[in-house]
Amino acid sequence: MVITLRDDVTPDQRRAVEARLRAAGFQLVAAPDTAPVVLAAVGEGTMPSLADIRALPGVAAAAHIPEPFKLASRSFRQRSSIVTVGGVAFGGDDVVLMAGPCTIESEEQLVRTAQSVRAAGGRVMRGGAFKPRTSPYSFQGLGEEGLKLLRRVADAHGLLVISEIMDRSQIAMMAPYVDIFQVGARNMQNFSLLRDLGTVDRAVLVKRGLSATVDEWLMAAEYVMSGGNDRVLVCERGIRAYETYTRNTLDLNAVAVAKAISHLPVIVDPSHAAGVRDKVVPLARAAVAAGADGLLIEVHYDPERAICDGPQSLYPEQFTALAEQLRLIAAAVGRSL
Amino acid sequence: MVITLRDDVTPDQRRAVEARLRAAGFQLVAAPDTAPVVLAAVGEGTMPSLADIRALPGVAAAAHIPEPFKLASRSFRQRSSIVTVGGVAFGGDDVVLMAGPCTIESEEQLVRTAQSVRAAGGRVMRGGAFKPRTSPYSFQGLGEEGLKLLRRVADAHGLLVISEIMDRSQIAMMAPYVDIFQVGARNMQNFSLLRDLGTVDRAVLVKRGLSATVDEWLMAAEYVMSGGNDRVLVCERGIRAYETYTRNTLDLNAVAVAKAISHLPVIVDPSHAAGVRDKVVPLARAAVAAGADGLLIEVHYDPERAICDGPQSLYPEQFTALAEQLRLIAAAVGRSL
Amino acid sequence: MVITLRDDVTPDQRRAVEARLRAAGFQLVAAPDTAPVVLAAVGEGTMPSLADIRALPGVAAAAHIPEPFKLASRSFRQRSSIVTVGGVAFGGDDVVLMAGPCTIESEEQLVRTAQSVRAAGGRVMRGGAFKPRTSPYSFQGLGEEGLKLLRRVADAHGLLVISEIMDRSQIAMMAPYVDIFQVGARNMQNFSLLRDLGTVDRAVLVKRGLSATVDEWLMAAEYVMSGGNDRVLVCERGIRAYETYTRNTLDLNAVAVAKAISHLPVIVDPSHAAGVRDKVVPLARAAVAAGADGLLIEVHYDPERAICDGPQSLYPEQFTALAEQLRLIAAAVGRSL
Amino acid sequence: MVITLRDDVTPDQRRAVEARLRAAGFQLVAAPDTAPVVLAAVGEGTMPSLADIRALPGVAAAAHIPEPFKLASRSFRQRSSIVTVGGVAFGGDDVVLMAGPCTIESEEQLVRTAQSVRAAGGRVMRGGAFKPRTSPYSFQGLGEEGLKLLRRVADAHGLLVISEIMDRSQIAMMAPYVDIFQVGARNMQNFSLLRDLGTVDRAVLVKRGLSATVDEWLMAAEYVMSGGNDRVLVCERGIRAYETYTRNTLDLNAVAVAKAISHLPVIVDPSHAAGVRDKVVPLARAAVAAGADGLLIEVHYDPERAICDGPQSLYPEQFTALAEQLRLIAAAVGRSL
Repeated sequence: MVITLRDDVTPDQRRAVEARLRAAGFQLVAAPDTAPVVLAAVGEGTMPSLADIRALPGVAAAAHIPEPFKLASRSFRQRSSIVTVGGVAFGGDDVVLMAGPCTIESEEQLVRTAQSVRAAGGRVMRGGAFKPRTSPYSFQGLGEEGLKLLRRVADAHGLLVISEIMDRSQIAMMAPYVDIFQVGARNMQNFSLLRDLGTVDRAVLVKRGLSATVDEWLMAAEYVMSGGNDRVLVCERGIRAYETYTRNTLDLNAVAVAKAISHLPVIVDPSHAAGVRDKVVPLARAAVAAGADGLLIEVHYDPERAICDGPQSLYPEQFTALAEQLRLIAAAVGRSL
Repeated sequence: MVITLRDDVTPDQRRAVEARLRAAGFQLVAAPDTAPVVLAAVGEGTMPSLADIRALPGVAAAAHIPEPFKLASRSFRQRSSIVTVGGVAFGGDDVVLMAGPCTIESEEQLVRTAQSVRAAGGRVMRGGAFKPRTSPYSFQGLGEEGLKLLRRVADAHGLLVISEIMDRSQIAMMAPYVDIFQVGARNMQNFSLLRDLGTVDRAVLVKRGLSATVDEWLMAAEYVMSGGNDRVLVCERGIRAYETYTRNTLDLNAVAVAKAISHLPVIVDPSHAAGVRDKVVPLARAAVAAGADGLLIEVHYDPERAICDGPQSLYPEQFTALAEQLRLIAAAVGRSL
Repeated sequence: MVITLRDDVTPDQRRAVEARLRAAGFQLVAAPDTAPVVLAAVGEGTMPSLADIRALPGVAAAAHIPEPFKLASRSFRQRSSIVTVGGVAFGGDDVVLMAGPCTIESEEQLVRTAQSVRAAGGRVMRGGAFKPRTSPYSFQGLGEEGLKLLRRVADAHGLLVISEIMDRSQIAMMAPYVDIFQVGARNMQNFSLLRDLGTVDRAVLVKRGLSATVDEWLMAAEYVMSGGNDRVLVCERGIRAYETYTRNTLDLNAVAVAKAISHLPVIVDPSHAAGVRDKVVPLARAAVAAGADGLLIEVHYDPERAICDGPQSLYPEQFTALAEQLRLIAAAVGRSL
Repeated sequence: MVITLRDDVTPDQRRAVEARLRAAGFQLVAAPDTAPVVLAAVGEGTMPSLADIRALPGVAAAAHIPEPFKLASRSFRQRSSIVTVGGVAFGGDDVVLMAGPCTIESEEQLVRTAQSVRAAGGRVMRGGAFKPRTSPYSFQGLGEEGLKLLRRVADAHGLLVISEIMDRSQIAMMAPYVDIFQVGARNMQNFSLLRDLGTVDRAVLVKRGLSATVDEWLMAAEYVMSGGNDRVLVCERGIRAYETYTRNTLDLNAVAVAKAISHLPVIVDPSHAAGVRDKVVPLARAAVAAGADGLLIEVHYDPERAICDGPQSLYPEQFTALAEQLRLIAAAVGRSL
């Protein structure tokens, strides 16, 4: 249930409303930055009737939230959320570029790639230190040493850091190095991890699972938000379909749907959706045209020697040219980049 | 096999090359508008060795066509085809807008919609006279009377006509009324129909089946082309996935792939891919950003009263506003509209 | 709407009921072989209230048919239909084996395969004379000559004939040679064909499209039935999924669902669902265990030399061994074979 | 690479072979219970040529393992593995029944259900103490208290225990209570969890992810095996498709494929694949007919009051009747139950 309080609500009235819903088994969450106050009552209680709540002093309106997710829904927050991380705003006018290599390999790799990312207008650098490899025998990442490198290089270039976390046991170790925790598609329903990320002071980007519905994807965001962390970004990265020319199939329907039913910023990762470099460019353009709030793109200064995902990593000059096109497309849809 | 002849090939040499391949069981097709001459040898013969063919006088080069489709492949025609219909060029610089109602209902409906289509810069008017309805009890279309109306209204507004054909027995009757025969997704592998459309003097737009691979889709185009008709457009209209918020899932990966491996113009129908009006707009923008050569959009002057597909039909003013955005996006990717 | 008349209904009362519904825009269809009389009112009329119909003299009960298909639904016919073709009953106690080659190639091929089919207890012989080939350059079938051969060989071995029809223009030519018209997966929504098959005196087997929902599949059956032909079999043959080890993915959920919501016999084609011989055997067993009323299996006396589908065709001895296992499984689920 | 040693290999020769491959960067794993010795060399080293290895003294044969999974492949172990847990053998002649409630609710619930499971011939009891709920607000399970109850009740009825683990941090706590750790579909690529389960002295059942390929599924098993634990069962539980009548779509193709390319026992969970009780029965029968080595079924003594998955839980009497049919089907395919 979403309850809008009156402009002139008194503290006592607000407490009484909250107490009434807590007694019914709900937890109360106030929408940030809204006046008048908007509250969500979430949980597994016995929902009182709307009429009962509307009759309480200080209540301006009350309505059910029809979506299975609550804090992530537009029924709760009608304006799009702006998630701010280290001075970069996701969900506002700017379309945010995040880019970098699949895997952290070396300082040279990071420095040369960071220069390209920065030059093209990127704000956030990606790089994996722990890799969810399909094979147990594949390279699993440089671990904490890699994160140290990434942090240092990103700082030197004025970039923020996003990196993938694979298990809740890594939270404390990783937190000093990253600005945004990335939850991979394979972990989208690792509920233990999501729950713990609800209590950290970092933004969280939740990638959509390979066959997740939009509802399930936003429910994963809800897990994080239900723990108190509302700096959540959701990221479409391609679904599993039957075509073999590309790795996965970018689903821009899902971007349009998520923007309509949720207030959260929606990011698109065209690199994993395509799996081949020359398809990343048109899909990145399409994502911005469809309304994405940011892009997460694999770029490598020397893709032929990349340890992983080389075939889908853009060359620096491709990335620069793409950024120019994206700037025009963003303008066409009333955004900047 | 694709055989490039020398600039100075003599008619006798060319005849000898063709005779050699015909003897091996192949049919020869020359690429239109190319100098030097490029020939495709297609069919189920016993392929001679490349060395044998290359050794023939007058042959500059010979190579296998790795794709299962041959005449539709870029291995055969490296430059993108420009398909011209009544003065409108598909596959060139212009992104072509085709729009109109799902079903032809009345003259008033057509006139009012045609005005909108024309005003927004549309070049082709769509409208169904025979409807592939899932239920045998649903309205099946106005038939030839509808086509007459559509032709008259389109002519009066300087628009071309595209309309869906459901069975080969309708070809002769429909031909006077349409500029482009549309083959629906459900008929994409109605090989009897495709084969017969290979012999008509009309352009053919082949919609992709709901779960067709890109290869299968282009093979449907190949069926038409193998009959001698090379004015073929292919149209992505959404694939069947598991999401229930939208009718189908627009697959722009397929657009990027088809543009890379085929020379045919690729059209996108965002209306059927979305199924709900407010998602049609972002998907239409995304299609142009991804490189589509044209759009096929459902527009109705009064969607609430449309006999079919009302919820996915744009209002005229939405369509006009969309066309403005598309113009900017087309420019961003080096096209016009 | 389904209307059950009273045991003692008079002809005048029945006529009055029918007139009432016809006046409202509906067509009346009586369920075969039921006493008391059960009528379905189908079409696009303006449905009268149930109360109005129940109040008519001679009416015992009236209810809406919630399914989109009407004549094919169990809401209309609660008992499973038994479709009898040339003395073979589909949908009764017996699980019916239909088998034969993908494509008719020669008399020797047919004779040797027919012997195997007959010996293993098969009742119907399959064989394609018109092949829906993905490539226009592939062998397209022997045509009418093939059908003549198939009919003669089947007759000589006491087998019925099933063969695929690709276009409505083939109906008259094919009818003398076949007992069951097979509509292929690619033509499941070729509504022109389905409609015309509604008026022929032959049984029709409708294969499920590669990504058809159960509702769409049964709507295809409804098209045939709405024309007056109620000898319809529906056939599951695998859906398109993302796995590449097999050609398609057999969907036995759909068999269980179709048996529950429709009264029509449900056949399974494990050959196309598997695409590789050694997977056909376990899937055929699974189909009978799941409740299939018949199987359609590709068998060839010399699969290595088959023109098409050799890799998925069973060897005769495999088919014989399979039939033995199927007999035991049929018994386990209260059927015979 | 798989290396078969000679019958008369000396310990020194074996050490030399192993040293050669370790030097190349591989880890050596011996197949259990095979004579002569069969070794797998796994890892990311630089593979020596087959000729080099075959030339080493004591080597009878050497071959590459074409599958991406190695220890799980039939190329490594040609005979089907028999995984023994507390006296129950999976993968042998017996088809093993595992059943019980979705969620542990109470002692009464467990006792009454255990009686049914035991009476019908079940050997293992399932019951969730930690539930991977899509919503953070849903009941999350009784936790360790639930496991204690389940262990006690299972012991009292001579049943083993299988229960789902959601995070690696639960391993030590859960180990005393369970005989088989279940990894859920949503965690199939939680590689941190899989890796740690490779080092425990418990069997592990790995459910297939909702859109996992067979290769990815077996790679998840490989993760566990690469840690040294070869008591792994893999479990098909339905894939995500587009049909809405059932929860998921049981994929018996995958069972047939996994049995062919892996030596691991393959279990089927028809309850989650169907999602509705009356479809569980035919799918369970189909699974055994297709060659499943065991079934995992939800049974509840009072499904109407179940906290979760009530609609897909069988009534005890349904389960008993099903077990009777399964016994006959198992016999039909040369198994017992």
